[in-house]
Amino acid sequence: MDIRSLVEVKARAARSAAAALALCATKTKNDALGQMARGLEEKTPALLEANRADLEGARARGATRAFLDRLTLTEPRIEEMAQGLRQVAALPDPVGTVVETWRRPSGLEISRVRVPLGVIGFIYESRPNVTADAAGLCIKSGNAVILRGGSDAIESNSMIAAVMAKALEKAGAPPDGIQFIDTTDREAVSVLLDLPGLVDLIIPRGGEAFVRWVADHTRVPVLKHDKGLVHVFVDADADVEMAAAIVLNAKVQRPSVCNALETLLVHHDIAPRFLPLAAARLAEAGVELRGCPETRRLIDVARPATPADWDEEYLDLILAIRVVPDLDEAIRHIQRHGSGLAEAIVTNDRAHARRFTREVDAAAILVNASTRLVDGNQFGLGAEMGVSTSRLHARGPVGVQELTTTKFVVQGDGQVRE
Amino acid sequence: MDIRSLVEVKARAARSAAAALALCATKTKNDALGQMARGLEEKTPALLEANRADLEGARARGATRAFLDRLTLTEPRIEEMAQGLRQVAALPDPVGTVVETWRRPSGLEISRVRVPLGVIGFIYESRPNVTADAAGLCIKSGNAVILRGGSDAIESNSMIAAVMAKALEKAGAPPDGIQFIDTTDREAVSVLLDLPGLVDLIIPRGGEAFVRWVADHTRVPVLKHDKGLVHVFVDADADVEMAAAIVLNAKVQRPSVCNALETLLVHHDIAPRFLPLAAARLAEAGVELRGCPETRRLIDVARPATPADWDEEYLDLILAIRVVPDLDEAIRHIQRHGSGLAEAIVTNDRAHARRFTREVDAAAILVNASTRLVDGNQFGLGAEMGVSTSRLHARGPVGVQELTTTKFVVQGDGQVRE
Repeated sequence: MDIRSLVEVKARAARSAAAALALCATKTKNDALGQMARGLEEKTPALLEANRADLEGARARGATRAFLDRLTLTEPRIEEMAQGLRQVAALPDPVGTVVETWRRPSGLEISRVRVPLGVIGFIYESRPNVTADAAGLCIKSGNAVILRGGSDAIESNSMIAAVMAKALEKAGAPPDGIQFIDTTDREAVSVLLDLPGLVDLIIPRGGEAFVRWVADHTRVPVLKHDKGLVHVFVDADADVEMAAAIVLNAKVQRPSVCNALETLLVHHDIAPRFLPLAAARLAEAGVELRGCPETRRLIDVARPATPADWDEEYLDLILAIRVVPDLDEAIRHIQRHGSGLAEAIVTNDRAHARRFTREVDAAAILVNASTRLVDGNQFGLGAEMGVSTSRLHARGPVGVQELTTTKFVVQGDGQVRE
Repeated sequence: MDIRSLVEVKARAARSAAAALALCATKTKNDALGQMARGLEEKTPALLEANRADLEGARARGATRAFLDRLTLTEPRIEEMAQGLRQVAALPDPVGTVVETWRRPSGLEISRVRVPLGVIGFIYESRPNVTADAAGLCIKSGNAVILRGGSDAIESNSMIAAVMAKALEKAGAPPDGIQFIDTTDREAVSVLLDLPGLVDLIIPRGGEAFVRWVADHTRVPVLKHDKGLVHVFVDADADVEMAAAIVLNAKVQRPSVCNALETLLVHHDIAPRFLPLAAARLAEAGVELRGCPETRRLIDVARPATPADWDEEYLDLILAIRVVPDLDEAIRHIQRHGSGLAEAIVTNDRAHARRFTREVDAAAILVNASTRLVDGNQFGLGAEMGVSTSRLHARGPVGVQELTTTKFVVQGDGQVRE
């Protein structure tokens, strides 16, 4: 079968499964999620073997150690996936939730009710656990999903998806609700992006260039998960110990992800007290510093920051530092260079905190907390498809609720329009 | 100036006004809406004159009487626009509304707060009152708007937009928040669709082919306002009088709009009692009927319904009628032919009403009420930009709330990620 037919067949199967999934009882969906968890646990030896094939391939292609680590499945990691699915099962079912109800003077009763989006095309990176998370969230929210994972993880992903589809069947839910594109041919992505009647939403998760490419090549609505050019601003009267702890956590706890810190802004008045302390901690953690002239007067840095540094998402143990004269300049800097994902201020000044949260435009604004907390799990939403940088539909962590839409249900007793 | 530069200059002005509008106090925005209303009233003679120029042009181009009627401004119609703006001023301000707040075990407090979308590109039909409604809704929700109206109404729209921009200035709000594209050159639309960094949302409102063309030619998110292939299903135990009144209203109260009835489905058991009664009323109102064979056994129709009739949006005094054996077949027919805008059932059977509202997928499902009620004003949301047939972001009537997005505001006292 050619690639177009292969993807289209899967999309048609997903479309018809979506109609059935939309009407599935909560119990059936939760049973399926439980069966998925059990299935992954039972298939652990086979999953580890499939994963070994992926790892060998990646090693042969010269993958970095960090990449191989992300790709690797272990017994504890499989158990984590299973527990993640059980957590999704424990979440409230968003489908059928009445968001609001009101009554009109005519007696008409209007409700807004949550319903699934339909068929979701999910195009993602290499970590195999994302396959289980995404499929679990889509099923819980009554959607069918077409998964297209990274080619390096194809053996692992393929087996995870098969185990999960089998679990749907065991629970009496439509097994076609989880489709996996089991070819590494890039054309499959182009085809998936070109099925407006069959796919309701595309969620691309990956690097900025890739996500932009996806958005530019489809007429299907897209929820972008791309760039995080994240700032922390340490205000004049911040608690320096708290500020140092937040900056360290935001930069080093996991530097390769979108909510990690990239540029540190420091108020001029606190810089002499704060920067030496922060620099010592960051140096200890192996962070390379790049500083503005004012920064370099106060601490040693690896090299001067150039204008390009303010626009670079390092995704690595590198931090750009700029000293700013005031809150206004910090906000202006963020407006000019931020990517609208997560921005934080460390301050004890209530008025400054209020201005920062109001005037900075991003999916999440934090006061006295690490930007690494911008995450579905950390927010208490359960697992996440990722963190949306789109403004429409869902902004920030995307969980089960964000995978639904609403319909109006109008109850009358003969009302007509005058 | 060439067309691209002209549109880009307006979009850049809108973008910078949007930043200021997002922070505008509710009082300032409401003052501006009041000034707009007063401005339209004061400029009534000039507006009528501008409208006369549009009408002459349209008449010279051979416009139909219905079209000319829609294009015509009168003193009462201008007063209606002014009152519409005052109603929008009276609506609660969605910006800054806290949608939800919760606290995490760590003490982190997370809120979801409404903020404006940014810059909205609105591309719409000929009725000049839409200009005032749309601009009013965008300003109330803190957005800047770029208006591109139909070329037949350019003189009227241009003056309405100028009056409204002036009102922004008088109230101390950024006058660049309302931009009007004052050229009839079609290229201006193409340019407007091609400014991803400057425009956050495109709302096209018009015929199906036009809206699809817009959606296919932009990378900016789109809220579609297009087709309504609307059904009413008269169930076996419907109240026949109520059913006849609803069908008549849904078909004739205003046949040219998207929520008007196009296909009537009638349960086999009630057809002999219901159809003659309904047919008499519809004939009186000048409706041409097209029926399936079973329909034609019971009443006289203008001509047999062909399969093409089930997929045609007449937008006229024409009604297709099909007798169906049961609820299942009614639902199947709607799934196959409906456009997902509004679908109604008339029934006294509670179980059937529940199945219909659950199983039919549309922006609005009505039980015992006319589909013409699917409208922002009728729903009590104030004015509307239109009725969205998109699934993402906003589905159904689009009012001020739908013109916002949210941001997360996270308050901590030093929390980091473990």
